[in-house]
Amino acid sequence: MRRTDVPLAAVFVALVLALAEAPPDARGEEGLWPLDAVPLDAVEKAYGFKPGKEQLDRMRASSLRLGGGCSASFVSSQGLAQTSHRCAAKCIDNLSSKEKNYLADGFYAREFADELQCSGMEADQLLETADVTERMIRTIEGKDGAAFAEAERAERTAIVGECAKGDADVRCDVVPLYPGAVYKLYKYRRHRDVRLVFAPEQSVAFFGGNLDSFEFPRYNFDVAYLRLYTEGRPLDTDNAYLPYARMDARPGDPTLAVGHPEATHRLSTLAELNELRDRILPARLVGLAHWRGVLSGFAARGAEEDRISAWRRAATETALKAMEGRRAALIDPVIMAVNARREEELRQKVEADPELKARCADAWENIRKTLELSRDLRDRYAYLERGEGFNSHLFRSAKALARNAAEALKPDEARLEDYTDARFPAIREALLAPVPIHPELEKLQLAFSLTRLREAFGPDDPFVRKILAGKTPDHLAAELVDGSALGDVAVRLQLLQGGQAAIEASTDPMIVFARALDGDMRAVRRDYEERVAAPLARNSGAIAWARLKIEGAALYPDATSTLRLSFGVVKGYRWMGAEVAPDVTLGAVFERATGVEPFVLPQSWLIAEPQLHKDQVVNFITTNDGAGRNSGAAVINKAGETVGVVSDSAARFLGATFFYDGDADRTVAVSVGALREALIRIYHTDRIVEELAK
Amino acid sequence: MRRTDVPLAAVFVALVLALAEAPPDARGEEGLWPLDAVPLDAVEKAYGFKPGKEQLDRMRASSLRLGGGCSASFVSSQGLAQTSHRCAAKCIDNLSSKEKNYLADGFYAREFADELQCSGMEADQLLETADVTERMIRTIEGKDGAAFAEAERAERTAIVGECAKGDADVRCDVVPLYPGAVYKLYKYRRHRDVRLVFAPEQSVAFFGGNLDSFEFPRYNFDVAYLRLYTEGRPLDTDNAYLPYARMDARPGDPTLAVGHPEATHRLSTLAELNELRDRILPARLVGLAHWRGVLSGFAARGAEEDRISAWRRAATETALKAMEGRRAALIDPVIMAVNARREEELRQKVEADPELKARCADAWENIRKTLELSRDLRDRYAYLERGEGFNSHLFRSAKALARNAAEALKPDEARLEDYTDARFPAIREALLAPVPIHPELEKLQLAFSLTRLREAFGPDDPFVRKILAGKTPDHLAAELVDGSALGDVAVRLQLLQGGQAAIEASTDPMIVFARALDGDMRAVRRDYEERVAAPLARNSGAIAWARLKIEGAALYPDATSTLRLSFGVVKGYRWMGAEVAPDVTLGAVFERATGVEPFVLPQSWLIAEPQLHKDQVVNFITTNDGAGRNSGAAVINKAGETVGVVSDSAARFLGATFFYDGDADRTVAVSVGALREALIRIYHTDRIVEELAK
Repeated sequence: MRRTDVPLAAVFVALVLALAEAPPDARGEEGLWPLDAVPLDAVEKAYGFKPGKEQLDRMRASSLRLGGGCSASFVSSQGLAQTSHRCAAKCIDNLSSKEKNYLADGFYAREFADELQCSGMEADQLLETADVTERMIRTIEGKDGAAFAEAERAERTAIVGECAKGDADVRCDVVPLYPGAVYKLYKYRRHRDVRLVFAPEQSVAFFGGNLDSFEFPRYNFDVAYLRLYTEGRPLDTDNAYLPYARMDARPGDPTLAVGHPEATHRLSTLAELNELRDRILPARLVGLAHWRGVLSGFAARGAEEDRISAWRRAATETALKAMEGRRAALIDPVIMAVNARREEELRQKVEADPELKARCADAWENIRKTLELSRDLRDRYAYLERGEGFNSHLFRSAKALARNAAEALKPDEARLEDYTDARFPAIREALLAPVPIHPELEKLQLAFSLTRLREAFGPDDPFVRKILAGKTPDHLAAELVDGSALGDVAVRLQLLQGGQAAIEASTDPMIVFARALDGDMRAVRRDYEERVAAPLARNSGAIAWARLKIEGAALYPDATSTLRLSFGVVKGYRWMGAEVAPDVTLGAVFERATGVEPFVLPQSWLIAEPQLHKDQVVNFITTNDGAGRNSGAAVINKAGETVGVVSDSAARFLGATFFYDGDADRTVAVSVGALREALIRIYHTDRIVEELAK
Repeated sequence: MRRTDVPLAAVFVALVLALAEAPPDARGEEGLWPLDAVPLDAVEKAYGFKPGKEQLDRMRASSLRLGGGCSASFVSSQGLAQTSHRCAAKCIDNLSSKEKNYLADGFYAREFADELQCSGMEADQLLETADVTERMIRTIEGKDGAAFAEAERAERTAIVGECAKGDADVRCDVVPLYPGAVYKLYKYRRHRDVRLVFAPEQSVAFFGGNLDSFEFPRYNFDVAYLRLYTEGRPLDTDNAYLPYARMDARPGDPTLAVGHPEATHRLSTLAELNELRDRILPARLVGLAHWRGVLSGFAARGAEEDRISAWRRAATETALKAMEGRRAALIDPVIMAVNARREEELRQKVEADPELKARCADAWENIRKTLELSRDLRDRYAYLERGEGFNSHLFRSAKALARNAAEALKPDEARLEDYTDARFPAIREALLAPVPIHPELEKLQLAFSLTRLREAFGPDDPFVRKILAGKTPDHLAAELVDGSALGDVAVRLQLLQGGQAAIEASTDPMIVFARALDGDMRAVRRDYEERVAAPLARNSGAIAWARLKIEGAALYPDATSTLRLSFGVVKGYRWMGAEVAPDVTLGAVFERATGVEPFVLPQSWLIAEPQLHKDQVVNFITTNDGAGRNSGAAVINKAGETVGVVSDSAARFLGATFFYDGDADRTVAVSVGALREALIRIYHTDRIVEELAK
């Protein structure tokens, strides 16, 4: 299919003409819109353009969710997908070995047959959504605590089961879009044969390291290409891709971004923001900083330790910087004042309306109290059930095996959600994925997380005493990791097939450990769901309900790792009284390359330098609302063509998680022109270049 | 001298009798009183007792300041002083080597001749104080910014010079007690021949590690003994010691604590507390957590790396926990509400009084604005001039050598304070102290601090570019440390004696580096003093002046590492609805010893166990106001005898830095009975036992 055939194209001409006359209202660019809830009239008013169903359907079909704040999008008719390098880093790392370091050296499959499967990776393609609010609300109405939690879980399981119909290729999620007020059913095609096609060297993909991440100007070539296969053949995406544009988007050009932003907190109450600012974020920051130091000490032990910890170090440093940026937003008096004013206005409207007042006037105070009274429980839930205290691949396997054996004995509707027939295929595949496990790193991670767990609750806590049983975190981690055979896929398969009898008979120390803790973890989970999650959902739902009554369609839901569309233009920003241009050229990248970490360009770039068009733009920014981790999302031009791939947003703008500011919030992307230039002149990936040109 | 001869004894009998009838008012225990400002009438009212000048003088003469939040006190007539183990840890570490690990194995000098000198350690004994407020105020009155900073510095230098009279054995400090409102001159005898007499094994001194520090119940034997010498002979302290009591203090017994608490923030404005809560403490926490991880990775490299980083690891973990506790206090709505109410009341009183209003109504807003506008400068001052960005012993030496050479060319009154005739002896001695320097640890520290500096200002900052000059922090640190000869005392001496010519001729890379940065560091210092320190002092002074007008003698100054006296009683506290007893026995320590880090008792304890009185109290808590790091302070009973040595305070109570709460704030100490029991039955230090019994 040719670029000019894309249905979107024609329609977008109107948009650009309209923009030439009337630049969009800055506030008009706020919004992470579900594709079935784009405020078409408002968009038309702002952009003189109204995307049709067909266009939105193509965007939906072209988009992939990779999880963990990562997206991808099809860019050819043969299942080729672009994403950001970070989003493929785990796969690239898993495929590497002491002998072949694809993370450091990059990867390129010359033939289809050379494309390497990313074990355990899943890419979900949204098929359809449906509103299940009525069904959910009918079930949970009037309930709270245990009754609410149980009713919500049971109904969700029923809806998901009916939707998936036992098809392991389908994933269905009931997503509380406005938790407790609106529930949507998302149905995805699960693609599990994802293969790595191309990745540049990490040094240029993550050029500038954490010093430059979330900053602009930016100088990185942050991309990777994957291909989806089905039944051993490339997936046919003839009707589901966004072809590469011939021209880059220019300053002032309108852009759309389509991706799966992970999470925002724009509808959070002040009490929730305060909790984040004062407790949740600071605790995470201290934990991450500590872990960063531990990892750097591990990397210093030798070349192999350096290699196997490389992407984890990058991910840790990036997460740290992102959280610093979010905390900075929450101590910004302007952002907090805006949020306080909005909350106050909403509460006044609620007080003024008898119906709203009766249903939700207490909700804010209820949320505040729930947060205040549940701090210990929240920590226990995070450390025990969510695994912060047991950060180990082997432990996660052991826990899943032991849980599955126990849950499989129950009827489907009574099981924990992950172990229902509709959900378990994903766990099963993760369990059996032949990914490399590095025992030394496993021990380091597990010992570290046990250390943090012990400090969180103190050495005299009964649970801490039970798990450590008089050992140090280091000793326990070594005992569990060194003694476990779960690193072997065959052993995991055997235990999976053996069911409860095999689990009960196992003497593998990691299985024994997980078995011993399962009761505590389940109890904490139950407590948390009943005493924290349920009242928060109930009261957030009441507020969202009031908000929807008042604001109606103008209200978009917070990001929830579901597909969203945002509108924007290529535009710089003012910083310290000066204008910052919205784009950075390849020439600037070479100027920045001191040859010293993290400003080292790989050999491939140095060799190709004389052939490159130095004025080619490599990174650019747009006003698209891209908060909440939207890496790998597609940036699309007025013609419906791909003009870039999203890297991240910029640090001073991380506040967009809480509050969108059209003057400051920017999405950072790699331009299609730079992608083409590098693929042709640096990497000589003729096969891909041809495929992208079709 | 016998215990019964101590003059204090008789007087204190009255106190205990009075207490039997009227327990002291809880609020009466708040206060870190300078010895010349104890509110005698209030104390008499609360305790039925009024300490006389003689008693206060003896306490003063018995007390030593070690610096860094550390105190010590004489406990024999022959210059023997007790302190907490942490306060002697650096000396113990410096005296250790690969062959003799006194930190791990403990130390005991069987004879006077075996007592080992702590190189570079200084113990200051307060001789007298004088009020220099009038003189200082006369000079700074009506000035601000550069004029204020320069006038304050010049007058301080003049006063200090007149006080020290060129005597290197004397240290004089002009201390702004209420910065900008009250200035006191403190004159100390500088003792530099400090020798290590006894230290237990770190495992029992720091038993429970950071898991137990700042907690109670506590189970540690946190003590070390030093001896001060003069002209090669033990210092005669016949009139300046607080003898060991025969009996421990019992629950309900009154206690006095005398020491040099480092810093509290009870008179800070809300704007200052907010700055601490939102920016200063979080940044320090993240930096410390990162460093903690880096250090643990270093320790994992091998036995020697483990040894040379041991006390730094303990210190880092302790600092981290202390700062967590302080941040927790600042997000406590009760503590902040109390501070807000107090500030509001004070501001109302100021508004109501024309004289006060004219002089200081704007002070709060001025402080807020100064803090808000000076964040970048404050960070630069910390990283550049205070050395956070260059954490290296060799760098500090190079900086002092280069600065001294330049400053020595100026007249005394025009020099930077540390390089005046009155101050330089301390710098000179530190420069020439033959302490061990570990190059690998130097490189680790320097590379780490350069990394933090680069992240703080970004890789494009001109200063960052200048210092790194295209190198990574690791490379630069290695180049500077490996290339420098400053680890050799003789080289330092040569450069010191060679003056400016030697510095200019030096090609030592650390000297070259320090020389190149000196201009930037001086500029930042000047800017900071003029634009931050001066307006803060001026406005804090105005508030303090108003406060003193209103509250008078009831107002005690914040801790400033000067000698303070506090009153209290041995008393438990309520926690989670239960009473926590105020004392812990030796038996409980053995019960807690799992044999696994950090709950390992040394061999000496295990061997002596059958001989020990298990019901002997080892740790106890008192209501003494001990905020702001008061380790090593003496705890004294009603008879003027030593009943303990302060270890620290307890974590839930670290809020006392900002706000004293008689229900919760406790000082944690090691009891005299446990000291005696261990010295006799575990360590068989007959010589010290006899000396202490005299």
